[in-house]
Amino acid sequence: MTDKTIAIACDHGGLELKNILKELLAARGLQILDLGTDDNQSVDYPDYGYAVAAAIRDGRAGRGVLCCGTGIGISIAANRYPEIRAALVHDAFTARMSREHNDANVICFGGRTTGPGVALDCLEIFLDTPFGGDRHSRRVGKLSNPA
Amino acid sequence: MTDKTIAIACDHGGLELKNILKELLAARGLQILDLGTDDNQSVDYPDYGYAVAAAIRDGRAGRGVLCCGTGIGISIAANRYPEIRAALVHDAFTARMSREHNDANVICFGGRTTGPGVALDCLEIFLDTPFGGDRHSRRVGKLSNPA
Repeated sequence: MTDKTIAIACDHGGLELKNILKELLAARGLQILDLGTDDNQSVDYPDYGYAVAAAIRDGRAGRGVLCCGTGIGISIAANRYPEIRAALVHDAFTARMSREHNDANVICFGGRTTGPGVALDCLEIFLDTPFGGDRHSRRVGKLSNPA
Repeated sequence: MTDKTIAIACDHGGLELKNILKELLAARGLQILDLGTDDNQSVDYPDYGYAVAAAIRDGRAGRGVLCCGTGIGISIAANRYPEIRAALVHDAFTARMSREHNDANVICFGGRTTGPGVALDCLEIFLDTPFGGDRHSRRVGKLSNPA
């Protein structure tokens, strides 16, 4: 059941994009676990990256979506946890690679860097592209076991 | 002294770009700690992300540069460590923001996604842009202390 649940969160810089991406998730019949923020008040992006990471680690969601101004800070936060593979993507190619090569379970966007049409395209690809396995499995395994 | 040392590494997908970026570092008189890979043989990007993270954590380098195919996998690896803020950048804006807002100490590129001219531009900005401090200090502090 949690496989069909997507945790989503943002800071103030990613709010508008988060709301657009939620419409796509809802249209696809996915359960949405919205962990904030909910208004334009300035907040700290690590809190929201950590919230989505915790939801996946706890089994409350199968995947996650994160948005901040550039996607950089919020992806750094989520990637603090070995169970999380948070991919900052910018277009169809990077969205596809993030699934095929990195088995990403979180997709990250910058509300100031990626427009809504491109982001929606990326999110569809993120949801639909299977992991490539093979040599990539060994590499993804190493991401779960930092040296 | 280590402040002037830049650790740099890549997988096979980022080798060509790494070699171009090293020329800029050398031209600026920076010490380069090249942690591989050195040829086109297929390798695992996490090993190289972890190597640069270790060099910064050990004090052998002040900052780092990482390149893989998309920059996604190698940045996930480096960000496993709370001391590392590895920013995947794509242009002057994201390079500048990564320093001003995120105090990034590692810059990441995709050899298949970012051309050499743009990457050189980003690297110059990464080296020259100070951290903005203020409210960003609180957020960067949270990146060092995952919940």
